[in-house]
Amino acid sequence: MENIKSYVQQHKDRFINELIELLKIPSVSADTAYSQDVIDTAEAVKESLSKAGCDYVETCDTPGYPIIYGEKIIDPNLPTVLVYGHYDVQPPDPLELWTSPPFEPVIKKTDIHPEGAIFARGACDDKGQMYMHVKALELMVQSNTLPCNVKFMIEGEEEVGSASLAWFVERNQEKLKNDVILISDTGMISNQQPSITTGLRGLSYVEVEVTGPNRDLHSGLYGGAVANPINILAKMIASLHDENNHITIPGFYDKVQELSAEERAEMAKAPFSLEKYKNALNIADVYGEKGYVTNERNSIRPTLDVNGIWGGYTGEGAKTVIASKAFAKISMRLVPNQEWEEITELFTKHFTSIAPAGVTVKVTPHHGGQGYVTPIDSIGYQAANKAYTETFGVPAIPVRSGGSIPIVALFEKELKSKTILMGFGLDSDAIHSPNEHFGIFNYLKGIETIPLFYKYFVELSK
Amino acid sequence: MENIKSYVQQHKDRFINELIELLKIPSVSADTAYSQDVIDTAEAVKESLSKAGCDYVETCDTPGYPIIYGEKIIDPNLPTVLVYGHYDVQPPDPLELWTSPPFEPVIKKTDIHPEGAIFARGACDDKGQMYMHVKALELMVQSNTLPCNVKFMIEGEEEVGSASLAWFVERNQEKLKNDVILISDTGMISNQQPSITTGLRGLSYVEVEVTGPNRDLHSGLYGGAVANPINILAKMIASLHDENNHITIPGFYDKVQELSAEERAEMAKAPFSLEKYKNALNIADVYGEKGYVTNERNSIRPTLDVNGIWGGYTGEGAKTVIASKAFAKISMRLVPNQEWEEITELFTKHFTSIAPAGVTVKVTPHHGGQGYVTPIDSIGYQAANKAYTETFGVPAIPVRSGGSIPIVALFEKELKSKTILMGFGLDSDAIHSPNEHFGIFNYLKGIETIPLFYKYFVELSK
Repeated sequence: MENIKSYVQQHKDRFINELIELLKIPSVSADTAYSQDVIDTAEAVKESLSKAGCDYVETCDTPGYPIIYGEKIIDPNLPTVLVYGHYDVQPPDPLELWTSPPFEPVIKKTDIHPEGAIFARGACDDKGQMYMHVKALELMVQSNTLPCNVKFMIEGEEEVGSASLAWFVERNQEKLKNDVILISDTGMISNQQPSITTGLRGLSYVEVEVTGPNRDLHSGLYGGAVANPINILAKMIASLHDENNHITIPGFYDKVQELSAEERAEMAKAPFSLEKYKNALNIADVYGEKGYVTNERNSIRPTLDVNGIWGGYTGEGAKTVIASKAFAKISMRLVPNQEWEEITELFTKHFTSIAPAGVTVKVTPHHGGQGYVTPIDSIGYQAANKAYTETFGVPAIPVRSGGSIPIVALFEKELKSKTILMGFGLDSDAIHSPNEHFGIFNYLKGIETIPLFYKYFVELSK
Repeated sequence: MENIKSYVQQHKDRFINELIELLKIPSVSADTAYSQDVIDTAEAVKESLSKAGCDYVETCDTPGYPIIYGEKIIDPNLPTVLVYGHYDVQPPDPLELWTSPPFEPVIKKTDIHPEGAIFARGACDDKGQMYMHVKALELMVQSNTLPCNVKFMIEGEEEVGSASLAWFVERNQEKLKNDVILISDTGMISNQQPSITTGLRGLSYVEVEVTGPNRDLHSGLYGGAVANPINILAKMIASLHDENNHITIPGFYDKVQELSAEERAEMAKAPFSLEKYKNALNIADVYGEKGYVTNERNSIRPTLDVNGIWGGYTGEGAKTVIASKAFAKISMRLVPNQEWEEITELFTKHFTSIAPAGVTVKVTPHHGGQGYVTPIDSIGYQAANKAYTETFGVPAIPVRSGGSIPIVALFEKELKSKTILMGFGLDSDAIHSPNEHFGIFNYLKGIETIPLFYKYFVELSK
């Protein structure tokens, strides 16, 4: 432990500067305008793995962006840890809300991060958390403390559905053979209270298009006489929730795994202040499904949110027009055991069925993934908990996260191994938002904690 | 009549080319990026009035865009016709739907316009219809048939609420003194069946902003736990109509002038084919207020339409975000005797009141205007009807239009005179839409008909 701490102290400035260089490349996978940057980022990751001590690295071509594979096999008889991460990032917009350019990383102090945090798109999700594993490998190799084999699989399409990763995993089960999968792409409760994510929500993401008249119309001459696609879209979206904020799509809840009173009581033990939560978001009140509290609404319950909407005249001033088309991007967070393809079908069937005669509706599925729950009595979980306990001084609390890492379910299915989600980010890191950041404390703490996971995982596996 | 026809035939190519030059200037009043073009257009109009025979023209500065005033006073004892028109145009977007650039006018033949139509933003609304009056003056001056005094007042803010015009009219009642106001900014039933607009709808145009959390949020971590401004905006918009498509704003209908069964029967006589209407718009069915037919829904009934909506991620691909804000532009078409300021207040009060605790709402009024109805037994109406009858061979039918020319009510209030709406456009001209056009037939027919209005108005005034 001490030699780990001292190595991190000795090299922390370089660790930070290397991450900053990686954050400067705008690897936005959702926007083809950035495709060369995404590819450049992949190469930078590959190079960092070689430098860190992998004895074999490879750029694996896929139907989409390349997957970087790296490995260091010290003894085939020892356990193998497969590290997963992603080098792509969310789009940075709305740009005007960033206090510094999203791809020009700067270190700023905040109340939560007195030691400073790196502000940049991808700082936490997931370049920063992925790079902790690269530096942890370097540390173990340099200090001759790597206790087992390690494999890295770093993809570039996580923010757009990991389609190529699924394709890759299905075709490389032997190469990816492992005893446990380790991922840092989630958060923890606070810098004083580590937590391990034991559950993730699934996702179904669709885009809808409502078409009314075959051209934009003058709202004076046609207003009131034809279905206005924007009004209709609003009406259709509104109808997807009832007065208790239950989702109205027939069959939507059929396979939802309901938690027992005991499990809900266990969840309720996680420290949570509704006042702090509301103040942090500057909202007068929370809002959600009747019968569940905030920490349940955003973790064990499925949701439906509009992520984007557009139609008609959105420029300066006023235009009295009835648009021909209106659009929305809608995502549903799913819980075990909802099947995302089935939910996408249920949505499409229902959404199309509620369209009035005056309009036509097109639903285009974007991507999706399954929810996931991991047991807390596994060796991997125990090893992670011991590691956190040693570096933070308190045991980690198991939490269900509302986010989705669709490929975790895929890994279990294809690679037959459990995933441990060792997150070091905070909810306040503003991932997917303007001013995303990652605490220096969290970054370095991750690099300290990960080698201990390896140590205890090997010990407990004996 | 014959000398009018021959003059138009002789000069029609020049008439068309002069209008095309005027249409090349993108005088979009809603977008400040075009402000110099709007001013250039004003100067072009001023020059055209001098050339046409006005003996006095003036660029009148206002708090906004200039108003062009012109006059030809031949005898103070004769009646005076005040011509109103506007030289500003609607924004051209969505640009991608134009088959030719909106400010590069071209003449194309259509089924309805076998002689060809001029395609350009403003071709019909209102540069084309306004310019008919300029050319009609030229015709009367050149043929020494101008039977009375004429004044022109051409503004540049009609598409954004005519705020400066109201300011100008209030301050220039003596200068604008007249016996009748003549406007061509409406349509007629068809090229075989002229009509005169006897009623206009009023307008209240507002922009709404719904704010939820103080920043964009990750829809996985917060989805289901906080009010999503887009979902909430959709819900609020949907609630503005009930299941019969009545508007739910308390007090909204209180002052609505209900038509008698006789009046509705009279309206029903106007030729109308629901099948043709649906086919022209390529819609399976019409949609609107229960208890009223299409021609009533778009003329004698008030409406509420969303003209634009935006929020969240609207770019390529998928972004799992809960937006901090969502916006919409909403306009209400009003009928006699709804007061637009009062309706704007009722909307604001109601819309704010239906917002849930999780969001805050801001309503910003854009502009508005009163509805208007003109009697068909006035000298002005009779003169217009005789003019149409002579040039089209059939009498004009009085119709109520769904559109708004807010300043018509203002004219009656400030200038104490009636307005005659001699429109020569067609519903199919796509005003406010991509591919706006104005028939050559309609343009020349207007230039022929207007001098006859002057002739009969003076005769009937004796």
